[in-house]
Amino acid sequence: MRDFRSKFLDVFQVLKSELFDDPAFELIDFSRQWVDNTFTLELKNYIEDHQNPGGTLNRRFSVLDCYKFLKEGKELTDDELFLASALQCCINWLQAFFLELDDILDKPHTRQDQDCWFKDPKVCMFAANNGVILRQRIPRVLRKHFRDKKYYVDLLHLFDQVEFQTAGGQMNNLLITLEDEKDLSKYSSDLYGRIVHYKTANYSFYLPVACALLMSGEKLEDHLDTKSILMDMGKYLQVQIEYHDCFGDPQSGKTGTDIEDFKCSWLVVKALELCNDEQKKVLYENYGKQDPVCVATVKQLYNELNLQGVFAEYECQNYESLIISIEACPSAAVQVLLKSLLAEVYKRQN
Amino acid sequence: MRDFRSKFLDVFQVLKSELFDDPAFELIDFSRQWVDNTFTLELKNYIEDHQNPGGTLNRRFSVLDCYKFLKEGKELTDDELFLASALQCCINWLQAFFLELDDILDKPHTRQDQDCWFKDPKVCMFAANNGVILRQRIPRVLRKHFRDKKYYVDLLHLFDQVEFQTAGGQMNNLLITLEDEKDLSKYSSDLYGRIVHYKTANYSFYLPVACALLMSGEKLEDHLDTKSILMDMGKYLQVQIEYHDCFGDPQSGKTGTDIEDFKCSWLVVKALELCNDEQKKVLYENYGKQDPVCVATVKQLYNELNLQGVFAEYECQNYESLIISIEACPSAAVQVLLKSLLAEVYKRQN
Repeated sequence: MRDFRSKFLDVFQVLKSELFDDPAFELIDFSRQWVDNTFTLELKNYIEDHQNPGGTLNRRFSVLDCYKFLKEGKELTDDELFLASALQCCINWLQAFFLELDDILDKPHTRQDQDCWFKDPKVCMFAANNGVILRQRIPRVLRKHFRDKKYYVDLLHLFDQVEFQTAGGQMNNLLITLEDEKDLSKYSSDLYGRIVHYKTANYSFYLPVACALLMSGEKLEDHLDTKSILMDMGKYLQVQIEYHDCFGDPQSGKTGTDIEDFKCSWLVVKALELCNDEQKKVLYENYGKQDPVCVATVKQLYNELNLQGVFAEYECQNYESLIISIEACPSAAVQVLLKSLLAEVYKRQN
Repeated sequence: MRDFRSKFLDVFQVLKSELFDDPAFELIDFSRQWVDNTFTLELKNYIEDHQNPGGTLNRRFSVLDCYKFLKEGKELTDDELFLASALQCCINWLQAFFLELDDILDKPHTRQDQDCWFKDPKVCMFAANNGVILRQRIPRVLRKHFRDKKYYVDLLHLFDQVEFQTAGGQMNNLLITLEDEKDLSKYSSDLYGRIVHYKTANYSFYLPVACALLMSGEKLEDHLDTKSILMDMGKYLQVQIEYHDCFGDPQSGKTGTDIEDFKCSWLVVKALELCNDEQKKVLYENYGKQDPVCVATVKQLYNELNLQGVFAEYECQNYESLIISIEACPSAAVQVLLKSLLAEVYKRQN
């Protein structure tokens, strides 16, 4: 891990200095300082997440980790280390872009363990600007370091497709929580599946593995089974996050605001499936209100419906079904990689 | 023009229906409606701009127009008409993305002749969402319709580069107007040139011509002189816009808020170059204040310094110098194209 970190930091510094020397855009002095801060802050967040057991899970599983599994123990060359780290930087920047866009679109009260770092519309502008600056570095890095690779165009397509799908997922998520569109009768397992499919799993699970596959000379169309498993794992992680968000994070004890924000969460969908007419009435009257009494009423209903037990059962069944799918994958290396990823996610308490 | 419009509308409908049928992203019902509205509104704005003498100038000069010049009167095939129109759609979406981002970053009081269409932070979220949705359609269209072209990767690079540079220009523009960074002594011709170079000229002038050149089988690195001329024309258009923004649009009579917003405009840079110590003191005391008395004082100073005359002289000199550069271009077709573009911009009163 120490080696990885030091290598990753070296590569990050190289990519940052390439930005400052990019002939395509001459930074003016105060922009240089601003951009430097933006990239440094993003790196700091990544390193903390990567080390911190409470960090965003997917940030603890890098392109380099995935690629090592695919190389089945063979020593990586310096070039491979560089390229895998560069792709990890690109993924981080895409994720930062989405987190900042999500902050603008979603205005959560907290993001991870910290207070959401903007509180006024002006800082919203900077979030947009920072997000765009980070994201737009991606094609520059790909062009500079991967242009002569056979998989270059596939890599461009991969990043574009993931970005397109994730943004679509964010749009879905935004549109269903509009004040004048609030309608609990629209919420269903099917809708939930379609929202979460695009919003989280794509960039946090599929993208690093897909990058590692491309680096290994694989064609992504030959690994649709792997993609499907990763998307399922991403959905599982999202359900887990929402569960802890409602019942309290095991580490911090903090809770989120999915109930107040009228989110189409796994819990409300399950509650709608399980409740009787009287309970449904309570849910319709209290879901999506800022009033703490309403929130407490919804949580009490979740307890009455034993959603904790329902979650535990979902977790076990999902694990078994994922293991079966993983063991059906033709590549032994991919199997080991996917099982290792699943072990990180399963019954995660932090 | 009627033929162009009807062809363009056909192509737009094809590209929109491709979005709805894109297997990479399954739209949920209300997202479908939302996306439909976003694209339809963007198209409406484009058509109005294209027809309206007061519309954004670059929207009156399309990839198709440019390509026709390069074909020197030869009839275009249906395929060429389709591809040129598809690229125009992509440019429109990139422009819409930047206008919406600019609205978030810049919060102007008016955009073109209409009131800026959002007034509260919530609509800011939708602007971000819409902008991203439109922009992310670009690589999908390029992939579907240009993937087998020899210039496909060059086209991807072109769009990425223009986006990267324009966002950088927006960042520069944003950072120098920060409340705690306001410092008129930083403003200079050099700074102005560097801001405007990336912010406007790139996507409004260079991009459609560069698309047409690629379609004609040209390599962009063989047309650096053309790029340089187009960037100069873009700067000229920006100066013209700022001039009318201050002294009143000849058609609508409306004025903008560059003075209130502490913009690094061509006028304030010229004023700083020409003023004496006493006038400079007046400028420092009054520039960037919301108070109408301060704004009027700055405008009076601009009149004292005869900035109208300075602008008229700049306009003539710039025209002559552009004509000399254009006539030095090796390609006769490119010369005709550039002169036609210049004729649209020069001494534009609407």
